[in-house]
Amino acid sequence: MSLLTKTNFPLRGIIPPMITPLNADGALDSASVQKLIEHLIAGGVHGIFILGTTGEFSGLSYQVRRELITQTCELVAGRVPVLVGITDVSIEESIALADYAEEAGADAVVAAPPFYITIDQSEMYSYFKQLADGISIPMFLYNMPSHTKLIIEVDTVVKLSSHERIIGLKDSSAHGVYFQSLCHAFRDQPDFVLMVGPEEMMAETVLMGSHGGVCGGANLFPEVYVGLYEAAVKRDFGKVKEFQAVVMEISTKIYQVGGYKSSYMKGLKTAMSFRGLCQAQFASPLYPFSEEEVEELRKRLIEITNQLELKKV
Amino acid sequence: MSLLTKTNFPLRGIIPPMITPLNADGALDSASVQKLIEHLIAGGVHGIFILGTTGEFSGLSYQVRRELITQTCELVAGRVPVLVGITDVSIEESIALADYAEEAGADAVVAAPPFYITIDQSEMYSYFKQLADGISIPMFLYNMPSHTKLIIEVDTVVKLSSHERIIGLKDSSAHGVYFQSLCHAFRDQPDFVLMVGPEEMMAETVLMGSHGGVCGGANLFPEVYVGLYEAAVKRDFGKVKEFQAVVMEISTKIYQVGGYKSSYMKGLKTAMSFRGLCQAQFASPLYPFSEEEVEELRKRLIEITNQLELKKV
Amino acid sequence: MSLLTKTNFPLRGIIPPMITPLNADGALDSASVQKLIEHLIAGGVHGIFILGTTGEFSGLSYQVRRELITQTCELVAGRVPVLVGITDVSIEESIALADYAEEAGADAVVAAPPFYITIDQSEMYSYFKQLADGISIPMFLYNMPSHTKLIIEVDTVVKLSSHERIIGLKDSSAHGVYFQSLCHAFRDQPDFVLMVGPEEMMAETVLMGSHGGVCGGANLFPEVYVGLYEAAVKRDFGKVKEFQAVVMEISTKIYQVGGYKSSYMKGLKTAMSFRGLCQAQFASPLYPFSEEEVEELRKRLIEITNQLELKKV
Amino acid sequence: MSLLTKTNFPLRGIIPPMITPLNADGALDSASVQKLIEHLIAGGVHGIFILGTTGEFSGLSYQVRRELITQTCELVAGRVPVLVGITDVSIEESIALADYAEEAGADAVVAAPPFYITIDQSEMYSYFKQLADGISIPMFLYNMPSHTKLIIEVDTVVKLSSHERIIGLKDSSAHGVYFQSLCHAFRDQPDFVLMVGPEEMMAETVLMGSHGGVCGGANLFPEVYVGLYEAAVKRDFGKVKEFQAVVMEISTKIYQVGGYKSSYMKGLKTAMSFRGLCQAQFASPLYPFSEEEVEELRKRLIEITNQLELKKV
Repeated sequence: MSLLTKTNFPLRGIIPPMITPLNADGALDSASVQKLIEHLIAGGVHGIFILGTTGEFSGLSYQVRRELITQTCELVAGRVPVLVGITDVSIEESIALADYAEEAGADAVVAAPPFYITIDQSEMYSYFKQLADGISIPMFLYNMPSHTKLIIEVDTVVKLSSHERIIGLKDSSAHGVYFQSLCHAFRDQPDFVLMVGPEEMMAETVLMGSHGGVCGGANLFPEVYVGLYEAAVKRDFGKVKEFQAVVMEISTKIYQVGGYKSSYMKGLKTAMSFRGLCQAQFASPLYPFSEEEVEELRKRLIEITNQLELKKV
Repeated sequence: MSLLTKTNFPLRGIIPPMITPLNADGALDSASVQKLIEHLIAGGVHGIFILGTTGEFSGLSYQVRRELITQTCELVAGRVPVLVGITDVSIEESIALADYAEEAGADAVVAAPPFYITIDQSEMYSYFKQLADGISIPMFLYNMPSHTKLIIEVDTVVKLSSHERIIGLKDSSAHGVYFQSLCHAFRDQPDFVLMVGPEEMMAETVLMGSHGGVCGGANLFPEVYVGLYEAAVKRDFGKVKEFQAVVMEISTKIYQVGGYKSSYMKGLKTAMSFRGLCQAQFASPLYPFSEEEVEELRKRLIEITNQLELKKV
Repeated sequence: MSLLTKTNFPLRGIIPPMITPLNADGALDSASVQKLIEHLIAGGVHGIFILGTTGEFSGLSYQVRRELITQTCELVAGRVPVLVGITDVSIEESIALADYAEEAGADAVVAAPPFYITIDQSEMYSYFKQLADGISIPMFLYNMPSHTKLIIEVDTVVKLSSHERIIGLKDSSAHGVYFQSLCHAFRDQPDFVLMVGPEEMMAETVLMGSHGGVCGGANLFPEVYVGLYEAAVKRDFGKVKEFQAVVMEISTKIYQVGGYKSSYMKGLKTAMSFRGLCQAQFASPLYPFSEEEVEELRKRLIEITNQLELKKV
Repeated sequence: MSLLTKTNFPLRGIIPPMITPLNADGALDSASVQKLIEHLIAGGVHGIFILGTTGEFSGLSYQVRRELITQTCELVAGRVPVLVGITDVSIEESIALADYAEEAGADAVVAAPPFYITIDQSEMYSYFKQLADGISIPMFLYNMPSHTKLIIEVDTVVKLSSHERIIGLKDSSAHGVYFQSLCHAFRDQPDFVLMVGPEEMMAETVLMGSHGGVCGGANLFPEVYVGLYEAAVKRDFGKVKEFQAVVMEISTKIYQVGGYKSSYMKGLKTAMSFRGLCQAQFASPLYPFSEEEVEELRKRLIEITNQLELKKV
């Protein structure tokens, strides 16, 4: 049975969107999956979310997706909740993946709107309702307009939240007004989980009362994001300032090498490869940095690591 | 072997993006597939393109996609070329579908860029090259920025066109400058096929020398679009004017009931159901019109049909 | 001499973007200007910003703009700093307006990028430098991508900040990552003022260390926004929660009647007319609500006013 | 009295959006204005449109705009119709400019929607009606979504077309479906003038029955665009092909040096300076090409000029 339910154990904290370790031939790098999961749990994360955008779900074959689900659930073994991305353009493939995840022992699934055709809110409501009706595992909504071209409007979220299996929402819009509007709409329903995607905004939204963040950088330095979250919960402003500075250094240095639209993804995974957490291998259409870019990134990561050690944060 | 090759038999004319007939339970409506294919061929189309946007590819399970490929190839039986959409976010799923299509006897495949993450032109080039290298059937590029958020820039098309398996491009951008820039870039390579998506622009682009159109409305009235294409090729301006007026009536009346983002898809398939060519059933996230909308559409279709009969076009 | 300088008196707090009171014939409603200014100062605001987006600057003739500048500077009479919007598409008109404002006794001007043609960051840098060189009064940058189609990138802000007359930036993007990136870039320069536009985000950004907000709703209830700002500065989380709830009620109820793109502007000015602070008259292309919309708004405002009185916030 | 009326002398042909010749100090370069006007009329243009986007209206002071209106009307002296752009964000400034233009002897004015705030179609209709009511000279609508963020929807155009002073529309959207929808809506009203902005689309839209083009490149080589227009009207496909090739060479070579968002504007005006038609001086925020860019452009222009001479087109 899922660790998560709407009323008893609402999710809180830092849930990294786990990158998917790959070999050069595109197969799953199982050794790194194991190493990475131990790294995350040792870093104090409150859950693990696989097959999100940072997990490159869209570039993976269904075969690789299923292997990752199975391995992750086995390796995590109930120590923290496991969330599985089932976003797809075909509702039938999403349902099949949700069933597979449930069978494998996952705690919840996460679904963005179908991302090819553009639809109205009435169609979006109908879609998510049909999806939630078709599965038997708790589900998070995932607002990701930069990738789906669609916004799950606050009214649609409110209507969907009455579904027994819809337990929260992850918002990656980076739109501060949208997120505060959600928080206001659910101000009397603390069991509906509201998490923010962009790690740069996590501290401020937790200070305002929301529940945590799905922080990509936590793949690299989980203790930094967990530390920032806990400082925000405790309203320890000195620590918030210190950790936020590190988060912003990562954001502005590690995620911006080369000026690509994919610099975040390339920077994160390549930096992790320096720490032995995975290989710098990507699902198509992404491909590795050039040698010069790798060296630039290495220099930047060393600076940040040195800062971290000096500060002992 | 494919009917299509780059140098010997370049595609020309009207290639309807065939709608996918479905039953209420989402399964393929095989009886309608047969009826529809005969309707299209009787209407004089120059090819059939399945699993495009109008074919609702994104909402279909892979199972349904494969069934449609097999049935279409068998039923068409070489009378006209069959093109198969393989657009996907995972290159491995695209390649698997292309191999399946080739095996089934299709003549070419059609691929838009991966449509979840945003990428640069260098990644797009690398993606299409890797895809074309990975398959062994001719391939069309598919520019569809409203759905993929990405433009295949003219320079990228030019670079890709030297690949032996990349034989043309379908442009659904509706951007007149982009399309003329393509035509200019390929003015000395008439074997590289340039087709336009929006049927409202087909006549003018054929008058300027391009090769045809992938006209959704040809599912409903193939003879109208074939007639318009032939009139444009022959520069019979009287006929162009007459047929263009019908095409615009369909565009402004049949595709705009209800004011939905999906009004085109709903209007087209529902109008076809009136003619017994399919059921008004859609892949999720779309769903049927209300009764009032159906009646409004019926009234509009009758007007157009009456006009067609009066004019005997 | 300006009350504001970069190093000695950096601006802090709530600076309402004052609405422009108009008569039915489009002339300035001078009586309301006076009443409104007293209302704002009595409400504790830390400055007044005229001729911003909420001030409908773009719909006003230059004649009306100059009248408003003169009257505001005279009426405020140095009690709080006066900021004047000089955003224009012609740099010469902007400079003329800045000179006029300085002469009238304003403390600073505020400029968004020219908003008709689209330009690159190098042109934007050159534009703002030329503008700052051409005036002799302190200037704020104004990031407003929804209206200008342009983002003033963080690197461009950093380069411009070394200009002696550029003293801060107002960000109305609502983009949480952008704003935190600015805060990080200026973390060691507390004299460069960073203010947020969307009032829904003001509290969280002040909690994170930024300097205040340009809150439209402060036209209506200045004491609410001043209260929220002060609570955030003092880290009084109980008060933050209480005031933030009011701010969100205003945002979701007063600013969303009728579902227009201009519902914010119409709702704000009409609600103010109920309180006798101005007439519900707008600069073209906006026009008043229908009677039904007015009544719906009145009902909503009464609910919020009652809540405010009950809570005595 | 205006040369143009709705029913008697509808405009047809090539109406160049005249660039505004400037001196280095931003003042009007009156000598070049005279030279340019004679160049255009000698090239056979059917009208002259000043203060459009290509005329850099948005960067000019009102003083310069008025000088240009006066000089142009005097110099043209009734030889061809003069159209004057009055697009502004303040309706009062637009009306004042229209009155000035009428007084100076212009034949019509041209107005895009106000381009700062975003509005709904009902507000846009009301705006244009109020504007047309407020002036006493014929007016064209100007659809320019890339710069105004707003589309004048076909239904709004149809409603506005019944106004006695609204005599046509220039569409710079480059959206082929939009333009054909307009043509269809006005198929029985040939006196409502429909002109296309992007010169790359002019020939095809004229072949389909529309009325001409507002071609920026006609500033440089008026005879090429006039030739293309006349070839399209006469359905001389050999000439269409020949001229269209030149137009596309200009589009892809002259307008794309340096990869700026403003490359069109910079390339056009700089190329004209090579021919002695103006100086390569721009209104802020634009500034001249670097020396390398100037040389690159010169090389490209020479190639095109040589081609033109060889072909004697």
